[in-house]
Amino acid sequence: MATRKEVAELAGVSEATVSRVFNGVGPLKEATRRKVLEAAQRLGYHPNAIAQSFALGRSGNVGVVLPHVPKVHLFSAYYFAEILSGIGEALRENGRDMLVLLRSPDEEPGYAQLFRTRKIDACIVLGARDVPQQLAALRELRQEGMPFCLVNQRYDGERFSVVDADHVQGSYEATKHLVELGYRRIAFMNGSPEYSNSRDRLLGYRRALAEAGLEPPPGGLLEGNYSRTSGLAAAVRVGELRSSGLEAVVCANDRMAIGLVQGLRERGVAAGQDIAVVGYDDSDAARLCDPPLTSVSVPFYEMGRTAALRLLAAAQQSGAQAAEPFAATLPTKLVVRSSAVRRGGM
Amino acid sequence: MATRKEVAELAGVSEATVSRVFNGVGPLKEATRRKVLEAAQRLGYHPNAIAQSFALGRSGNVGVVLPHVPKVHLFSAYYFAEILSGIGEALRENGRDMLVLLRSPDEEPGYAQLFRTRKIDACIVLGARDVPQQLAALRELRQEGMPFCLVNQRYDGERFSVVDADHVQGSYEATKHLVELGYRRIAFMNGSPEYSNSRDRLLGYRRALAEAGLEPPPGGLLEGNYSRTSGLAAAVRVGELRSSGLEAVVCANDRMAIGLVQGLRERGVAAGQDIAVVGYDDSDAARLCDPPLTSVSVPFYEMGRTAALRLLAAAQQSGAQAAEPFAATLPTKLVVRSSAVRRGGM
Repeated sequence: MATRKEVAELAGVSEATVSRVFNGVGPLKEATRRKVLEAAQRLGYHPNAIAQSFALGRSGNVGVVLPHVPKVHLFSAYYFAEILSGIGEALRENGRDMLVLLRSPDEEPGYAQLFRTRKIDACIVLGARDVPQQLAALRELRQEGMPFCLVNQRYDGERFSVVDADHVQGSYEATKHLVELGYRRIAFMNGSPEYSNSRDRLLGYRRALAEAGLEPPPGGLLEGNYSRTSGLAAAVRVGELRSSGLEAVVCANDRMAIGLVQGLRERGVAAGQDIAVVGYDDSDAARLCDPPLTSVSVPFYEMGRTAALRLLAAAQQSGAQAAEPFAATLPTKLVVRSSAVRRGGM
Repeated sequence: MATRKEVAELAGVSEATVSRVFNGVGPLKEATRRKVLEAAQRLGYHPNAIAQSFALGRSGNVGVVLPHVPKVHLFSAYYFAEILSGIGEALRENGRDMLVLLRSPDEEPGYAQLFRTRKIDACIVLGARDVPQQLAALRELRQEGMPFCLVNQRYDGERFSVVDADHVQGSYEATKHLVELGYRRIAFMNGSPEYSNSRDRLLGYRRALAEAGLEPPPGGLLEGNYSRTSGLAAAVRVGELRSSGLEAVVCANDRMAIGLVQGLRERGVAAGQDIAVVGYDDSDAARLCDPPLTSVSVPFYEMGRTAALRLLAAAQQSGAQAAEPFAATLPTKLVVRSSAVRRGGM
């Protein structure tokens, strides 16, 4: 591999000039620049990107933090896969690479360290939760002026950049749809309230019930962890509630809804016929499962793309503008299928 | 942020000693090392990872090259999602991060450049094809002794490290299963022969037919591109072949099989009843679709994990050992569901 010295000799310039060309610093004549680049190309000279990044103070990498749980096939979850696809597309368009950072929810997040050590220039945090440790790590990033963005998670009262979906509206429409189909006793199976998007969904559910003069039925606020198995486990409780008149369940994601449908089937209860079930996310599985799920479509791909594009734009600003956090809320949309049909039509 | 000088003063050592501690070079007393680390911690000193990587000659990042196609939600494909999950798990266990490199199949791959510029220390290439440009780029990596590994792709006659699945056996068992169910006229819908795993599947299909004294029916070798839409499009041809006696189709992945099932349904032909269809991959969709697909389970997650672990082990070797490529072939397994039932039982 050619050295800087050889390039300098062939181009008839000093080694410092070669460095200036590759680091993009200092005033340079266009002719000089071209001479150096031609010599570098002829000799197969490749400036060291790390040394170069060091000089420029950046790596060209955008970090994406994902919550690591052992044995969970994280990339296979529709939610993360779609957001990552959107981020990947936007980063590629902008010549950046994606550094995937799997961090356990139980370990010190240490986001700021990733910037200080210049592994990344900017950062998108997925699956963050509203717990003190995580909040402190994000506040540190904010205080140090390191560009980052949250997806699908807000922290009330904090000035963090966020790209979110309108989950209040999504959950409101799902619940209202059931009310319009004639259901009165409608339960809600949520994920952990440590996620702002869980709290948003609960809000939308309650709002739709209140508008119809209804309340959650006794024992009708269930909690899972967004996994299929937690939906499967909830089938026992839902089966019991049915005998006291429960007619429908809104689930906070498709995986829990699919688990619930499977668990009910094992107990001889047919979703779509004996009880109405609505999912959330409109994943591939919602279309494919039996019965196909009425669900709420969330533009995860667009959310990832928007987060990356807004973040890269923000990272190029400086001063007061750079300090101003951005926020975007993308619309959700109800998709009607056959897991919830008109009451009496059952 | 504290400087190296301040750490040196507090620890009572030279700045060079501080550097040696953080770069892990040279002989050092354990007591000295501890003094420096304590001083660094008290002062909140963070050595610059890029500068440090530069000194050590590594980034701590393992690259994963993925074929980029605009608008395709790559991470949402079961195939890539599972392999990435396995790679991610193994890298995390070893304290490495994953640099995702989306590269268009039409652009110069330039793998070697990623090493030369020290963006990555080792590299896993997914979705590689047997085309001259890609082969040349991989040969360059091999010649320069840069550690890399292919997943699910072999190049005959090349000494590249590969982790693969036994697709000859997988396809053989899928076809043999149909023969045992009483089918004689069995078509095969493959992906591009630019993938060695497509050629392997064809081999297994032909072997099972030959053992039963059968041949592919006329026009019965179809080609798609592993997408659902290519399966959907093939339904026209399969419909025509049915009128000349076609009884069953083995598909080289589930997505094409699902597209084919949907396309046949639009034409009034029920898979599982009017024609037998077998998929490949045993993705979530295979379980969920209607009818549930008989398919071939491929341990993609384990393949990703194995590739990362073997690669990291190989990258730590030197000399003749490091030059020796590794190879692993993981077993596949037929999973029987209801898209192909006993002939006559239809």
